[in-house]
Amino acid sequence: MEPKSPKLSRTVITDLVLPGETNPIGNMFGGELLARMDRAASIAARRHSRRIVVTASVNHVAFNKMIPSGSVVTVEAQVSRSFKSSMEVFMDVWIEDRENGMKTKANEGIYTFVAVDEMGNPVPVPAVVPETSLEKERFEAALRRRQLSLVLAGKLAPAEATELKALFIS
Amino acid sequence: MEPKSPKLSRTVITDLVLPGETNPIGNMFGGELLARMDRAASIAARRHSRRIVVTASVNHVAFNKMIPSGSVVTVEAQVSRSFKSSMEVFMDVWIEDRENGMKTKANEGIYTFVAVDEMGNPVPVPAVVPETSLEKERFEAALRRRQLSLVLAGKLAPAEATELKALFIS
Amino acid sequence: MEPKSPKLSRTVITDLVLPGETNPIGNMFGGELLARMDRAASIAARRHSRRIVVTASVNHVAFNKMIPSGSVVTVEAQVSRSFKSSMEVFMDVWIEDRENGMKTKANEGIYTFVAVDEMGNPVPVPAVVPETSLEKERFEAALRRRQLSLVLAGKLAPAEATELKALFIS
Amino acid sequence: MEPKSPKLSRTVITDLVLPGETNPIGNMFGGELLARMDRAASIAARRHSRRIVVTASVNHVAFNKMIPSGSVVTVEAQVSRSFKSSMEVFMDVWIEDRENGMKTKANEGIYTFVAVDEMGNPVPVPAVVPETSLEKERFEAALRRRQLSLVLAGKLAPAEATELKALFIS
Amino acid sequence: MEPKSPKLSRTVITDLVLPGETNPIGNMFGGELLARMDRAASIAARRHSRRIVVTASVNHVAFNKMIPSGSVVTVEAQVSRSFKSSMEVFMDVWIEDRENGMKTKANEGIYTFVAVDEMGNPVPVPAVVPETSLEKERFEAALRRRQLSLVLAGKLAPAEATELKALFIS
Amino acid sequence: MEPKSPKLSRTVITDLVLPGETNPIGNMFGGELLARMDRAASIAARRHSRRIVVTASVNHVAFNKMIPSGSVVTVEAQVSRSFKSSMEVFMDVWIEDRENGMKTKANEGIYTFVAVDEMGNPVPVPAVVPETSLEKERFEAALRRRQLSLVLAGKLAPAEATELKALFIS
Repeated sequence: MEPKSPKLSRTVITDLVLPGETNPIGNMFGGELLARMDRAASIAARRHSRRIVVTASVNHVAFNKMIPSGSVVTVEAQVSRSFKSSMEVFMDVWIEDRENGMKTKANEGIYTFVAVDEMGNPVPVPAVVPETSLEKERFEAALRRRQLSLVLAGKLAPAEATELKALFIS
Repeated sequence: MEPKSPKLSRTVITDLVLPGETNPIGNMFGGELLARMDRAASIAARRHSRRIVVTASVNHVAFNKMIPSGSVVTVEAQVSRSFKSSMEVFMDVWIEDRENGMKTKANEGIYTFVAVDEMGNPVPVPAVVPETSLEKERFEAALRRRQLSLVLAGKLAPAEATELKALFIS
Repeated sequence: MEPKSPKLSRTVITDLVLPGETNPIGNMFGGELLARMDRAASIAARRHSRRIVVTASVNHVAFNKMIPSGSVVTVEAQVSRSFKSSMEVFMDVWIEDRENGMKTKANEGIYTFVAVDEMGNPVPVPAVVPETSLEKERFEAALRRRQLSLVLAGKLAPAEATELKALFIS
Repeated sequence: MEPKSPKLSRTVITDLVLPGETNPIGNMFGGELLARMDRAASIAARRHSRRIVVTASVNHVAFNKMIPSGSVVTVEAQVSRSFKSSMEVFMDVWIEDRENGMKTKANEGIYTFVAVDEMGNPVPVPAVVPETSLEKERFEAALRRRQLSLVLAGKLAPAEATELKALFIS
Repeated sequence: MEPKSPKLSRTVITDLVLPGETNPIGNMFGGELLARMDRAASIAARRHSRRIVVTASVNHVAFNKMIPSGSVVTVEAQVSRSFKSSMEVFMDVWIEDRENGMKTKANEGIYTFVAVDEMGNPVPVPAVVPETSLEKERFEAALRRRQLSLVLAGKLAPAEATELKALFIS
Repeated sequence: MEPKSPKLSRTVITDLVLPGETNPIGNMFGGELLARMDRAASIAARRHSRRIVVTASVNHVAFNKMIPSGSVVTVEAQVSRSFKSSMEVFMDVWIEDRENGMKTKANEGIYTFVAVDEMGNPVPVPAVVPETSLEKERFEAALRRRQLSLVLAGKLAPAEATELKALFIS
């Protein structure tokens, strides 16, 4: 299977925040944004693997800015690294000011997907070849995140999580 | 503000998986489950703080089991620890076999919420006093998770994340 | 088939009232609550029978309190009595005050479900053995309600609805 | 306030059953139909009273026929009788065969609505003057149903429910 | 196949505008109304043809009046003319004033549907025999619209669109 | 007001077709696609005008390809020309093959939006300066479409629709 550039999986979902998707102080529900991110990320994972994909985990999502009703929200998703059957998808979320048209970053998130066949069994996916410096940085960090998630799940001894350990001992 | 037992915030959401919420191989979309978990967790955080609450981050969600269309899914949420204005909510997700009635754990997740006033400014919340051994274990782990998330956000030097560091060096 | 306690079918659905579910004066639509009650009741009937279940009738629902947008609503459903293939499910609906955490009863409802096989044909269900005094009271009343519904449907002569008749003649 | 013919409140909602609204054996969820009936009935009550209306109770709904996915379902609602501020709405539900165009009655239901002002306080509504024989029959039965519901709610002594009692003693 | 009167396909969808379906100034989203019109029109086309029908094109929809949240909206659809496998459906959209009960026309639209078999292949449909003068007028105009759409799609030379041409040259 | 390039309003919505959005033969409902197109087009019109915008008309939408459940659908919208307060938005709709990743054009559509202030009154919008040859072609055609729509609405005599007339008489 030929390795692929992350840009081939790039997926952009732009949509309005409707009044029925907001909490009592008029900001978008976290849950609604999580659902949109899952759809964007799953399309990115599908574009990378050309397979059916299922959400394996949400590694991290930080809601740094509240998103008011009526906003235009853009979710940009891209596969940052793959591991056999699994793919890490990195997302940036932007909101846009109606009056001056400026985009500001509202938050970011990292989901992991697994490619499966029609029976639900994992199948291998292409490797990722990062190109830009941001893509390379996220590619490196993906390995530390994977080690961290294996450590937290008890599937990897902390001592063997070399890249992750380096963060704390250096 | 009087400290509170985690059980006072306990929230249970039980609901069916409808056909419109499933992917091409007939299992519940990750995004739909994330949205349900956000609603359960926000009610738990609200019960703990008696305030308006907003999602601050999703720290971790692992989808260990696929959830087929027509399943009965139960999300159980409880505030595991609080830090000034923020609350970590720990969730267990169960699915139930229609024929033998047995519940199996499908996955778990951790969200963080912040209590705010009507203007959206953070307000303090009661401390958590864990009671059962599971509650105590999750209460301890919540501190390590918080250090980890501060480290990942670049707001805490790895060397100062004492509890977290212990995990790798001991 | 072994008789079962009503508590084994107990089902709790707790969820927020979203802005898109309210009428022009900001209260939850009756229809939205009826749909949530149907889901809670169908899960309770399914837990009692371990079968596919279909809604047979709504016997009674009283909306005693309006439920404002943003409320936390809890529907508690329990099978109160069974008749061959059908089950009466009794529900209590609670709303919760965000500020003082107090729950007040907003209304109650009674639905009837029928257990069916994969072809849609009725199949027998276990009997119900009420335990608490409230369960016993609802168990007794269920028979009168069934007689009433048979009388209204013209399937039982009023004179033979012994328990029901007693109400008017004693 | 001038009395009105029931036909002035007549409301027809025709719509498809979408795949996401069906249970595991492919028939429309009872809860979805209850929600559609509530919308049709509330429009009928609003047309009769020209006021904001809120659902007060569901008196009876019988699901006599299953409604498969893809069906065209028609709900016809009409105010059958009014009592000070409340209106009983009677509904017939029809399904239509795609191939021969024949309509068959799938079930019927009775809801009660209350007309309110902008503060939510009850306001009087016009009387109903039934015209056809079916309208007259439903008008008469509405009084018995109202007595029954007052008896069940403990607000009327069974002995005083004259019309209802007649049913059992004659 | 016997020709049919347009009135046999007449379809009425009446429903409320819910708060979650409105834009930032509180009026119904165009897209939500387009979706309701598509459902009404598809039922009309199905009633005319007694076949599965698919949307082929939206020829024209004019939004002449804004429709505020809480309005009662009625879509009336009727097949205006058929061409082999395709049917033009003409719709009138009405809104109703709650206080005085008056209906005003909010807009109108024209959709085209094609009747297909289970494999998705086009099948012939009955001709339309207009009866009222409005039906006759729309029947005539349907031919000009079809010529226009064939011209715009490059499938008909402008010079051969006789009825349409007459409009510009007379 | 400074004229703007169409590319500044370019809006891309990519999303999955969910099972609850399909007709009995498993293809996306026309109405669901119309609603997505309305959202994409309204965001494009808003980006061009930096104002609240409301749908004024759907000029034309052709559904050339059926879109099966599970497809990834992309709607690309761009303002093609503006007239005082109104903007024509041209859209291309693409579907993507999961296995070979190829995009094919499924259909296209043209909507018109009007920019309004907070009271709903029309306000002027910037002119459009087309750059690519496709943008120029659509810019020219937009004038003919506008004349056509004014003629059809009886607001312009056919003889004065110079550009349009040329199409039939040359």
